[in-house]
Amino acid sequence: MKSSLLKVYESTQKRELPKHELEFGRTFTDHMFVMDFSESEGWHDAKIVPYEPLSIDPAAMVFHYGQSVFEGLKAYLSPQGEPLLFRPEKNIARLNKSNERLCIPAIDEEFLLDALKELIQIDQNWIPSANGTSLYIRPFIISTEPFLGVALSTQYKLIIILSPVGAYYKEGINPVKIAVENEYVRAVRGGTGEAKTGGNYASSLKAQEQAANGGYAQVLWLDGVEKKYIEEVGSMNVFFKIKDEVVTPELNGSILNGVTRDSVIQLLEYWGVNVIERKVTIEEIYEEYKKGNIDEVFGSGTATVISPVGQLDWNNYQMVFNNGETGNLVQKVYETLTGIQYGRLEDPFNWIEQVNVRRRVNKVG
Amino acid sequence: MKSSLLKVYESTQKRELPKHELEFGRTFTDHMFVMDFSESEGWHDAKIVPYEPLSIDPAAMVFHYGQSVFEGLKAYLSPQGEPLLFRPEKNIARLNKSNERLCIPAIDEEFLLDALKELIQIDQNWIPSANGTSLYIRPFIISTEPFLGVALSTQYKLIIILSPVGAYYKEGINPVKIAVENEYVRAVRGGTGEAKTGGNYASSLKAQEQAANGGYAQVLWLDGVEKKYIEEVGSMNVFFKIKDEVVTPELNGSILNGVTRDSVIQLLEYWGVNVIERKVTIEEIYEEYKKGNIDEVFGSGTATVISPVGQLDWNNYQMVFNNGETGNLVQKVYETLTGIQYGRLEDPFNWIEQVNVRRRVNKVG
Repeated sequence: MKSSLLKVYESTQKRELPKHELEFGRTFTDHMFVMDFSESEGWHDAKIVPYEPLSIDPAAMVFHYGQSVFEGLKAYLSPQGEPLLFRPEKNIARLNKSNERLCIPAIDEEFLLDALKELIQIDQNWIPSANGTSLYIRPFIISTEPFLGVALSTQYKLIIILSPVGAYYKEGINPVKIAVENEYVRAVRGGTGEAKTGGNYASSLKAQEQAANGGYAQVLWLDGVEKKYIEEVGSMNVFFKIKDEVVTPELNGSILNGVTRDSVIQLLEYWGVNVIERKVTIEEIYEEYKKGNIDEVFGSGTATVISPVGQLDWNNYQMVFNNGETGNLVQKVYETLTGIQYGRLEDPFNWIEQVNVRRRVNKVG
Repeated sequence: MKSSLLKVYESTQKRELPKHELEFGRTFTDHMFVMDFSESEGWHDAKIVPYEPLSIDPAAMVFHYGQSVFEGLKAYLSPQGEPLLFRPEKNIARLNKSNERLCIPAIDEEFLLDALKELIQIDQNWIPSANGTSLYIRPFIISTEPFLGVALSTQYKLIIILSPVGAYYKEGINPVKIAVENEYVRAVRGGTGEAKTGGNYASSLKAQEQAANGGYAQVLWLDGVEKKYIEEVGSMNVFFKIKDEVVTPELNGSILNGVTRDSVIQLLEYWGVNVIERKVTIEEIYEEYKKGNIDEVFGSGTATVISPVGQLDWNNYQMVFNNGETGNLVQKVYETLTGIQYGRLEDPFNWIEQVNVRRRVNKVG
């Protein structure tokens, strides 16, 4: 699919830019990208249109059988006012990985990245500039065939919406309290854990609700088979600093292959820190904790970038890391990653991608 | 919620009743039921409206985090031309069980049953009358709040759509060929297997696709933990006649609590057949098969009612039951259940519920 096939229908009514403090994921920009799939035409009719409600048949398969995938990434404003993307090709490649698991037809990654840049350029004035703010980007694909048979849909919609978001941490990063989840399971070997698909998140809500009622920010998920191996924290990957090494659960098919996770690993290795990806049991963490060997624990994900874990509760045990305060390594990882993302620090990894690289085409209406 | 609160907006343009052979789940009637949930009003604004596309914000949570549930049941036309429902209160109760797991606010079961009957009365002429045909009923709930945070939605829509469906079996029931699934997993203990939610079906598509490519109608799912206990067949519960007993996997939290499953158990017990609900391993089935102890295997579900399994392939073993033909017991269960459903046979269980029991109220427009 050539990017010259992208049509742009600009909105005639511009919404007002938000003046209030931005809450995550509640405000949306003037435009969205939409592309359709049919068996006869493949992915086609790519266009940028005004942000508006979708008109979807109540029998559309996504409402019934959940065949859907999504991604999440951000655009950041550089000190020079240029929009920047952070490793967007990784998110788009992962979208296709998720597509494969959910039997959704693959998309042309290069085309989608071009379309995404086009969309961001059009709504560029929606990228907030205050410290720690950004433009959250949500590409997603839904199955739209109106059919109640349990089968692969033959029709899909790929949509990208944009949401200006405030700083996750108002006064610097803040450690959270986490509970180990013993009853519910997020995903299992042979399931869809590695894919970014709605069902994984739907199944996590109950545990998350109970944790919130107990005063916890998130749950720590154990594996679905033996309930002893650590998988993720809430919707983040998790890292443990054990003595001088950093340990993180290895990718096993049910853990999300996080872009921030990969970036943290590369960054730590660049600094000469030994990072080990392997199986980690909750029991091992408790044993090392008792020996005083763990002083920093943190989650990584697109929304928070880095989230220190101040306390981890497992059955009747309470583990408090670094007196519940943000550790030095966590702080340094956070500042370096966000520094690169906002174009304030050098980018030795070539992670940053410019948005304004070419002029847009086929402007209609 | 009083049923007098149900408003009816009748369609001014009636669609043409289908003349072609009915395919499952592709044709829909003139009307649908819609009810909304908000935190301030609870479930409210219940109405029957013309069948039409939904207008939904692209940020609606169902598209992203899959918080949704559904049910499936049927209305049958009696020899006297009266529409009948089969144990509808079981489906509505299960909808609330699914709601609980997915953190969706409970619905008033009595009200929903009344609303469902109202809807069927209005579209009564859509219930097909040919042998084996019926009106498939699909209630479903989707999370509609436009918000990208991973959290419980505060807004939902409950919708019921109706689809006239043809006879599943054109020339009597027909045994199918099934493969045991060794790689993929449908659900796991602590997951959402017992709930009728989209994610369970989305995660089953990949295995189903591979099975279809191999010439199989469905897969037989093993448990997600040890991959040795039998759970379901495709989207049906499964029964094995072992010598003079009938064995079916016990409900364990990851197996769907099928209404047809429960009806089969009651029916068999009524006939004096010993039905045992317990754990069943695939290895045990193979051992009993080798001894010649298994001559009938079948699935149960709303769509097919009863589906005989003629062949079951597990790794390199092929098990052929009753020479691949429909067994006597399966045939008798099928004929009795459908006989009761269509009002042709006596109903000693009080399973059948009349639809036309009261006049409708609040006709608007």
